[in-house]
Amino acid sequence: MLDVYTQIASIPIGYNHPALMKIMMNPHNLSSFVNRPALGMLPPRMFPEKLLDGLISVAPKGLKRVQTMACGSCSNENAYKAIFIWYRTKQRGHSNPTPEESATSVINQAPGCPDLSILSFMGGFHGRTLGCLSTTHTKAIQKLDVPSFDWPAAPFPKLRYPLAQYERENAQEEKRCLEEVEDLIVKWEKKGKPVAGIVIEPIQAEGGDNYASFDFFRKLRAIAKKHGSAFLVDEVQTGGGSTGLFWAHQHWGLDDPADMVTFSKKLLIGGYFYKDEFEPDKPMRIFNTWMGDPAKNMFLTEVLKVIREENLLEQVKRTGHVMLNGLYELQARYPHLLSKARGLGTFCAIDVKDEDTRNKLILKARNKGVVLGGCGNQSIRFRPALVFKEHHAQLFLNIFNDALADM
Amino acid sequence: MLDVYTQIASIPIGYNHPALMKIMMNPHNLSSFVNRPALGMLPPRMFPEKLLDGLISVAPKGLKRVQTMACGSCSNENAYKAIFIWYRTKQRGHSNPTPEESATSVINQAPGCPDLSILSFMGGFHGRTLGCLSTTHTKAIQKLDVPSFDWPAAPFPKLRYPLAQYERENAQEEKRCLEEVEDLIVKWEKKGKPVAGIVIEPIQAEGGDNYASFDFFRKLRAIAKKHGSAFLVDEVQTGGGSTGLFWAHQHWGLDDPADMVTFSKKLLIGGYFYKDEFEPDKPMRIFNTWMGDPAKNMFLTEVLKVIREENLLEQVKRTGHVMLNGLYELQARYPHLLSKARGLGTFCAIDVKDEDTRNKLILKARNKGVVLGGCGNQSIRFRPALVFKEHHAQLFLNIFNDALADM
Ligand code: FES
Repeated sequence: MLDVYTQIASIPIGYNHPALMKIMMNPHNLSSFVNRPALGMLPPRMFPEKLLDGLISVAPKGLKRVQTMACGSCSNENAYKAIFIWYRTKQRGHSNPTPEESATSVINQAPGCPDLSILSFMGGFHGRTLGCLSTTHTKAIQKLDVPSFDWPAAPFPKLRYPLAQYERENAQEEKRCLEEVEDLIVKWEKKGKPVAGIVIEPIQAEGGDNYASFDFFRKLRAIAKKHGSAFLVDEVQTGGGSTGLFWAHQHWGLDDPADMVTFSKKLLIGGYFYKDEFEPDKPMRIFNTWMGDPAKNMFLTEVLKVIREENLLEQVKRTGHVMLNGLYELQARYPHLLSKARGLGTFCAIDVKDEDTRNKLILKARNKGVVLGGCGNQSIRFRPALVFKEHHAQLFLNIFNDALADM
Repeated sequence: MLDVYTQIASIPIGYNHPALMKIMMNPHNLSSFVNRPALGMLPPRMFPEKLLDGLISVAPKGLKRVQTMACGSCSNENAYKAIFIWYRTKQRGHSNPTPEESATSVINQAPGCPDLSILSFMGGFHGRTLGCLSTTHTKAIQKLDVPSFDWPAAPFPKLRYPLAQYERENAQEEKRCLEEVEDLIVKWEKKGKPVAGIVIEPIQAEGGDNYASFDFFRKLRAIAKKHGSAFLVDEVQTGGGSTGLFWAHQHWGLDDPADMVTFSKKLLIGGYFYKDEFEPDKPMRIFNTWMGDPAKNMFLTEVLKVIREENLLEQVKRTGHVMLNGLYELQARYPHLLSKARGLGTFCAIDVKDEDTRNKLILKARNKGVVLGGCGNQSIRFRPALVFKEHHAQLFLNIFNDALADM
């Protein structure tokens, strides 16, 4: 099979990469796999050095600290917690709670458990545990029947394609959404549930591979700053190189860095990068049993080495070029079936006429040997590994063309 | 070092167990370690069979299904979600949402996101993601500044020791707590936030190794049934054999099984067992990218084999006997320092005069080569691996005695 979905975008450098097999076969590493430590309590010797060699070497601009976690959900959940702690510390001017705050926190009541909120976007996806789920707004089936925090959801720009043709309309749509963000911040402040942070994906992936302009994100960052809300970029799906840069939000060219960036999937472990001021004042405020997994971190460090040595970000740009051009051609050839081809690097997508046709097309492609995944209501998302080369892209396009011809 | 804490109770059969090393060195297993699948979407061939050999072989009485997860937090979060889905389906009499429910669910509003609650206990610990954290009531530092669901917390019995001496008082205390549970269920129903489920640990671990009688739990189970709330037993710390039975709640002798049992730590992966009626009606309602980890599951299956082959549950009973008797002796020898020695199997604890003395004692023991962990305000919890034998217990008691003599 030619895998263009890679376990929901979570296989960074393909299956059975020799560099990773070597890690596994090195007898020195055996005990790291067999004995998983409680990383927050008893980190293995040299773990800080390993983070410097690995995660810290790809820290987004302006963020010098990293907190490891085990998956995308605990990464976002704990990033939200760090935001709430930061926000309350800022509000009260120090980090020493009153006796009332301490007492009420244990019984789920204010002021110890304050009414704070995280603002997110319609179509956004940030995970499915109860905190994350309150910022996820993709499909009803993911949220139905589950209690939610009363947190605000702003509209995400609905851009018209091709982008070049609708520049003015799209700029207006983005302006409308940004105004709505500010309105919601004011409204939730008045409700007594101030927006402590804003969370957004650089490309809404699960929601349908929805894009906004780099300018939109820069302005959103400025709005967060203006209202004293933290700005959290969720790179769980976009991070790790598939957009042609290691972090998708690097494309924006922010002058003022994001406050936090969460990651998982292609990075094999989870976690978040953060500014110094988001370090809680006391140990154990952000904590759990495992706090990640040194075995996965070992793989990650090797993956980062392979990305550098094999120049995979350049590879992604070249392959992405072939893929996106191929998708443009296919949508010109099958205008009754396809529209809105879009992408950054190999992080590409295309819309299919309707949900039913989309699902049939994915099945047809699978039966011809290509694994694809859907997103949103009628999109297909392409998520090859970073080692996907031009000839793989060509092969994929040919088979996809055959599947389309069959429809 | 002699480890009597085992990475917060998460190392089941000691470090570098030969059976686990063998799994690692088997070339057939390499690719399971290197290629982590999206288990909910593309389970590896034979995965169901592997579950039958492994997890299902230790399913608690009455529960035939299991859902794998990756840690204790996502286990509880998803168990809560399955409870909410079950409860709403029961309320509306079917699982087809109205258009209004579908539409409101995506924007965090009722009726799609209903006001339901989970009842938990003071001193209970169920994790630190935002849903779990709303059922955790141990230390302020774990909850301070983080928004919480308005969910009820019932008192957990505060028993007097030695138990045999205070039977009448303790029975009264448990009665008081159970009455309070019923009052809270009625109160939260009136508030419009019905109690969809009750969650409890068989022994409150992080909260201080707090016990209640088996009778208390049986009555609590009946109360849950009476009010139509699901009964969830959190065995994240107690599960896996250290109480002398594989599941601590087996000690209760429930006629009517629990509805759900969550696990992680010593089981190396996470997840929950559940009754048929807690299976959501549609796929993807309980879902995330990884949904556990087949590599960890492979270790678990081997651990279960070792537990059976080496008769480790019997070993735990024997060692636990030595440990608890030793602790009784030490508390008789150092009555000014120690009290309330208690335990089931090797899952033992003792109280120290005060928090400061407790912390000093743990440090002293560590400097003499024994790793211990605290819990609650002034307790030490003992959490050896299942391979901890009588002579290890004796060694630990001797060193602990030396540390005490030094105080
Ligand atoms: S919540 Fe991330 S691994 Fe469990």
